[in-house]
Amino acid sequence: MDQFRPRPANSTPLTPLTFLDRCATVYGDCPSIIYGHTTYTWKQTRQRCLQLASSISNLGIKKQQVVSVIAPNIPAMYELYFAIPFAGAIINSINTRLDARTVSVILTHSESKLIFIDYQSLPIVLDALSMFSPNTQKPMLVLITDDGCPTTSVGFGTTYESMVEKGDPGFNWIRPESEWDPITLNYTSGTTSSPKGVVHCHRGMFLIAVDSLIEWSVPKQPVYLWTLPMFHANGWSYTWGTAAVGAVNICLRKFDADVIYDSINKHGVTHMCGAPVVLNMLSNTPEVKRLKNPVKIMTAGAPPPAAVLARAESIGFIISHGYGLTETGGLVVTCAWKGEWDRLQGTERARLKARQGVRTVGFMDVDVVDPESGVSVTRDGLSIGEVVLRGGCVMLGYFKDPEGTAKSMRENGWFYTGDVAVMHPDEYIEIKDRSKDVIISGGENLSSVEVESILYTHPAVNEAAVVARADEFWGETPCAFVSLKAGMVGKVTEKEVVEYCRGKLPGYMVPKTVVFKEELPKTSTGKIQKFVLREMAKKMGPLRKSRM
Amino acid sequence: MDQFRPRPANSTPLTPLTFLDRCATVYGDCPSIIYGHTTYTWKQTRQRCLQLASSISNLGIKKQQVVSVIAPNIPAMYELYFAIPFAGAIINSINTRLDARTVSVILTHSESKLIFIDYQSLPIVLDALSMFSPNTQKPMLVLITDDGCPTTSVGFGTTYESMVEKGDPGFNWIRPESEWDPITLNYTSGTTSSPKGVVHCHRGMFLIAVDSLIEWSVPKQPVYLWTLPMFHANGWSYTWGTAAVGAVNICLRKFDADVIYDSINKHGVTHMCGAPVVLNMLSNTPEVKRLKNPVKIMTAGAPPPAAVLARAESIGFIISHGYGLTETGGLVVTCAWKGEWDRLQGTERARLKARQGVRTVGFMDVDVVDPESGVSVTRDGLSIGEVVLRGGCVMLGYFKDPEGTAKSMRENGWFYTGDVAVMHPDEYIEIKDRSKDVIISGGENLSSVEVESILYTHPAVNEAAVVARADEFWGETPCAFVSLKAGMVGKVTEKEVVEYCRGKLPGYMVPKTVVFKEELPKTSTGKIQKFVLREMAKKMGPLRKSRM
Repeated sequence: MDQFRPRPANSTPLTPLTFLDRCATVYGDCPSIIYGHTTYTWKQTRQRCLQLASSISNLGIKKQQVVSVIAPNIPAMYELYFAIPFAGAIINSINTRLDARTVSVILTHSESKLIFIDYQSLPIVLDALSMFSPNTQKPMLVLITDDGCPTTSVGFGTTYESMVEKGDPGFNWIRPESEWDPITLNYTSGTTSSPKGVVHCHRGMFLIAVDSLIEWSVPKQPVYLWTLPMFHANGWSYTWGTAAVGAVNICLRKFDADVIYDSINKHGVTHMCGAPVVLNMLSNTPEVKRLKNPVKIMTAGAPPPAAVLARAESIGFIISHGYGLTETGGLVVTCAWKGEWDRLQGTERARLKARQGVRTVGFMDVDVVDPESGVSVTRDGLSIGEVVLRGGCVMLGYFKDPEGTAKSMRENGWFYTGDVAVMHPDEYIEIKDRSKDVIISGGENLSSVEVESILYTHPAVNEAAVVARADEFWGETPCAFVSLKAGMVGKVTEKEVVEYCRGKLPGYMVPKTVVFKEELPKTSTGKIQKFVLREMAKKMGPLRKSRM
Repeated sequence: MDQFRPRPANSTPLTPLTFLDRCATVYGDCPSIIYGHTTYTWKQTRQRCLQLASSISNLGIKKQQVVSVIAPNIPAMYELYFAIPFAGAIINSINTRLDARTVSVILTHSESKLIFIDYQSLPIVLDALSMFSPNTQKPMLVLITDDGCPTTSVGFGTTYESMVEKGDPGFNWIRPESEWDPITLNYTSGTTSSPKGVVHCHRGMFLIAVDSLIEWSVPKQPVYLWTLPMFHANGWSYTWGTAAVGAVNICLRKFDADVIYDSINKHGVTHMCGAPVVLNMLSNTPEVKRLKNPVKIMTAGAPPPAAVLARAESIGFIISHGYGLTETGGLVVTCAWKGEWDRLQGTERARLKARQGVRTVGFMDVDVVDPESGVSVTRDGLSIGEVVLRGGCVMLGYFKDPEGTAKSMRENGWFYTGDVAVMHPDEYIEIKDRSKDVIISGGENLSSVEVESILYTHPAVNEAAVVARADEFWGETPCAFVSLKAGMVGKVTEKEVVEYCRGKLPGYMVPKTVVFKEELPKTSTGKIQKFVLREMAKKMGPLRKSRM
């Protein structure tokens, strides 16, 4: 066979940015974004993104410089996912619920040159900037205003809309030179306290966007409700993916169950994504009626308790469950559903669906291995190991952290996730915990998630999280933090909860401590912040003479 | 921004072969292939492919050697699309309707080491081998037998099934070292008489397979009827694509309208592909009832006449129309449908759908340019230029033909298709002809396809093809070859056909010669062989004193 080499005609860099051009051609007059009383068409969205990209360039932003945005799921946020990389820059979207110190760390570490700020985040950003050391260059600021924006912000220099207006409508967006060029920089937030800068490239984001559409069988022109923050792993790549299929993007500044049900009824929502906390919110609403048309929800981010899955499905949500990390830019493992499972009982079905599943069609490999030896664990649903991944959407690496990059992306060809799982005999994986969330009690490794799933079946429990508490005898024992449903506060005791678990779990897995909280500490994406709870458990000191 | 480089965890070569492993995990007990009384499950299909790959290796086949197959759409053909590349080899599927001389040219040129032969093609292959020069090494032969196979073939050494049986069930299939490694070698057949060896790589076939699923919104577990020969551009990549979604592949040795309608009813077919000749076949069947459930057909390979489209849709087929070449491994331009077009009248809708359309989601670029200057033509639906393409599924090149490769894959980054088209103001392209099919009459470039589309609207016309005939005055004039519908032979005259066209076309486009044929010469994929007709027109000699 001849030695063929890539040529320009077949090696044009893969990038998800081309989706928008095509979408404006095919679905130009169809709605792209609906936000309150504002509606744009795909032609308008493309035009606005080009003009914005031109204005970003005119501010002196160079290729591969970082441009930040801190905003909720508003139209500007969606547009910036195209406009910033259209200008050749790297988009760094920042979680709106971070504190000023963390925002300051991110802006400094990323060397961000420009930041788009939703008016509600302005105080945090100004605080963050005040913490910069005197010699550190500050980013330029652009304010994103809105109908609800107080007039006091009007005096603020450049605004988002003025940049859109002043931009060149004939701007030629800047294509990546290589498909390995960076396109996003996401700081992981939440379950640990030290954020890391995850860098993804154009190729990776093209692949995950395309894969996520196939995996979920997303049809043309779906109605997509933005209940997943775009700043969370770029909305699992649906920021670009919705442009590939000409979707209607329903944007929301903030939401609760009522807002979601209203949107579903008003706009005919067909698809939405969210952490299990969103499912929980939807299924715990009193007086909720069965949906007229089924709505597909993709959930991930934490293993959804079986009881919550079952309740949401009874309302009419069709729930798919998957797994991914900021480092994979979206879901790379999903619980691909088998027709034969439809015949099973509700709880059995929910138990199967609570598993993370198998690699997606476009992803190359997933395994559960002994982290020391790299050997695959036995596929028995019991042997615990670390989830390892490989495929085109695994990140380029951690920004300015070659050591962290090398540690997770090993020479043996695998990305080590730090998540602990089992592989079932049918080759579906089930996450048991983050490595650091595993509780080691009397030499037994026990999964906090399993204990939580039992707590969730208790009729009074709203949310539950289990962490290790030091124990003088056993080393560690499970400590449960629980919030109760409305009206149940004071009506259930610590002892009752422990007894409830005792009937359903082996002795060593039964929580030896139960703490009732009004609300559990969460990240903006609905993940319970176990590191906060772990701190609380630490302050309690070691438990004495707990019984197994 | 740090300089990140690809690492093993994110640069695992893209390949469509991984689809089968995943499919066997998720849809293991579901039917993969149905062929007469034979049914396989996906677990069985994967197992058979691994065993076959092991036997191919055991025959001494090395990485990147060519292994051929000549067979219709039978289960073995489908399996070989995984088994041959599983062994690290390159699959070369050969059109079953070629003559012995061409097969001999292909086997020699490809240096094929092994050929799998459907029993019906055995005489042709033996003939072809007898034409080998004495010093040329012949490939090893393996016979594919079948229920219908005559017992006289039994004496023939190795059979396909014995290779499956003897193979190692634990064989580890050979992953490509690079995603740019070749996976297929397809000789273009048909409209020209000199076949060229188109080489595709793993990356390209992964990308087109994934793109074709999104483009057609293919759901999970469709029922796919194999009316498109797999040897035609690897079944437009659906050979691998059906494994990505766990489809049921309905295989057929041969088919006519009755067989297709029977399969639709018996198996609940949801999807099929085919040249317009298949549509024609389905819509010209007398007494055809409206389909109970709609069946999606993807058609390409030649611009479908508007009248045929309209008829097939009235029966209940949902027709999508696209464009691709063997050199792109599948469809890279499709007539993406706009909801607003549903409101239009039948003929107007058919006129729009007869256009090839816009680039697919996963493809990077398409344009219509002046072939000399490379400048884009005006987007007015009138200015004619050459279709140029770029994207990840454009071939590696032509085998042993660096000159031909360089000529079509130019330094300016485009692949030149040799197809002539216009671009409409809405950016949808419409193919007007192969470059060589354009007729130049009195200095006017005229599209034979446009003349044909008028001929197809004549109630007596079954099929029509127009080529250039030399003309003493005008240089060239259109010459129409026409076959008539059953019962219409002898009932329509050459003069009537000319008059019919005169009412609907400008004078210079009206055929000056009309030849009635019982049947038009076609390739196995239903494309009319214009080069044969051009030869016939040549033999007629130049036309004298034709009137415009």
